[in-house]
Amino acid sequence: MNELEEKLFLLAKDHLADAYSPYSHFHVASALVTDAGEIFTGVNIENSSFGLTNCAERTAIFSWVNAGRTGKIKCLLIIGNTDRPISPCGACRQVMSEFMAPETEVILTDSQGDYERFTVEQLIPYHFTEKDIQDGANK
Amino acid sequence: MNELEEKLFLLAKDHLADAYSPYSHFHVASALVTDAGEIFTGVNIENSSFGLTNCAERTAIFSWVNAGRTGKIKCLLIIGNTDRPISPCGACRQVMSEFMAPETEVILTDSQGDYERFTVEQLIPYHFTEKDIQDGANK
Amino acid sequence: MNELEEKLFLLAKDHLADAYSPYSHFHVASALVTDAGEIFTGVNIENSSFGLTNCAERTAIFSWVNAGRTGKIKCLLIIGNTDRPISPCGACRQVMSEFMAPETEVILTDSQGDYERFTVEQLIPYHFTEKDIQDGANK
Amino acid sequence: MNELEEKLFLLAKDHLADAYSPYSHFHVASALVTDAGEIFTGVNIENSSFGLTNCAERTAIFSWVNAGRTGKIKCLLIIGNTDRPISPCGACRQVMSEFMAPETEVILTDSQGDYERFTVEQLIPYHFTEKDIQDGANK
Repeated sequence: MNELEEKLFLLAKDHLADAYSPYSHFHVASALVTDAGEIFTGVNIENSSFGLTNCAERTAIFSWVNAGRTGKIKCLLIIGNTDRPISPCGACRQVMSEFMAPETEVILTDSQGDYERFTVEQLIPYHFTEKDIQDGANK
Repeated sequence: MNELEEKLFLLAKDHLADAYSPYSHFHVASALVTDAGEIFTGVNIENSSFGLTNCAERTAIFSWVNAGRTGKIKCLLIIGNTDRPISPCGACRQVMSEFMAPETEVILTDSQGDYERFTVEQLIPYHFTEKDIQDGANK
Repeated sequence: MNELEEKLFLLAKDHLADAYSPYSHFHVASALVTDAGEIFTGVNIENSSFGLTNCAERTAIFSWVNAGRTGKIKCLLIIGNTDRPISPCGACRQVMSEFMAPETEVILTDSQGDYERFTVEQLIPYHFTEKDIQDGANK
Repeated sequence: MNELEEKLFLLAKDHLADAYSPYSHFHVASALVTDAGEIFTGVNIENSSFGLTNCAERTAIFSWVNAGRTGKIKCLLIIGNTDRPISPCGACRQVMSEFMAPETEVILTDSQGDYERFTVEQLIPYHFTEKDIQDGANK
């Protein structure tokens, strides 16, 4: 990882303590940086009704949207207490595809510091887009 | 509304412009204040796959969780471009019940400045809790 | 409970075994009847990414929609392995409000056979509707 | 497509009329077959609160789970009124990864009869699993 990626990793690792996961006891955190250098972080937020759970990646992306979608997301990093670099779930991949360009880098890490690199396109190939929904609604 | 509530209203109203709602063209914003006086705001964030949409109330509450759940939520206000004070959806009521005490006030407003007051308990009476899930899982 | 409600209770109780809940170990089932006497049942269906979980009530209602929304839902019953009649989560209350009339009865039960009766309106008072979204989008 | 796949296509195409999509006016349907030859179908089911929307693929898979998870899913087909074979959203890919083997075939079609074939693994590579969550929770 380069210096900026290392910074995201350390921020995300520190943020693990803020996860709200009383049901799974599973802590996940995320950090993203925009091309303007702004950083947004996120943790997983569970609910007694499991379906209302929000993952760390989405919390970070929603924080950026909520701040006015300044700049463009350049890189997103995820960390989990997993035995291999943590995988983002499909729901988060869908939210990535809405707000991040296909070639944007996503770095998956674990608490040992192992990591894997993917692009958004690799994580969710042939993805569903706004254009599909418009085509469909006009028929 | 008292002075603090007016402040939440103005902050939420200004925040409407940050909503990401290209599918519904419906803008919603929210603002909450903790008993320590910290304020967190939120907007609705849609997705081409509608099921991945996050409402304004949840964005505000998740922002507070993501900041370390400092203090206790004292009041949450919602505003929408509706003809009557906007109603929070059931998913947001569930998230309120996870993070806000039953007697916490929720103020529903619209762009005309009309408003209604509810408590969390009034919005989601007899709600599902962590205790229910523990009882059930132990059987 | 009347004879029809007893029938829903027994069907839902039997259906508990079909729940897919390897993460919470919490089994919930539901049964609804239309005014034409058709019965649809549902169980909770979890996911390793908790946010993709579908509750029993929604599974039953979606089964009815998926069968062509024949008739009108007359009554919906829920059962869980809880110490008190199980409470539907806010997400399910929202889906009830989309497909069931405000005065429709919802019967909450537990494995001891205790029960509580609510109407949809009592479970989700002052609910968000299609009209709200149309008002908002037209502004 | 082979004869069985053609059958799924025709069933799904007919089922498009049952979609409940008053908000997007976008109809999607799905059909799956188990190795025992049982067929389950699904449509998209929207909600005035967009986040409670259930896609067609999930409705079909949930129908199969709700029927007791008999057999193993052999193939799932999706159809939408799109200009290219419709893409499943990330949330549905996640649910596929929970209930379908990585090598299971998913056929994406449109109303012109064009189609694309993917495996579950191709749609959601390096996916999040039950094992990840167990590893994480034990730390």
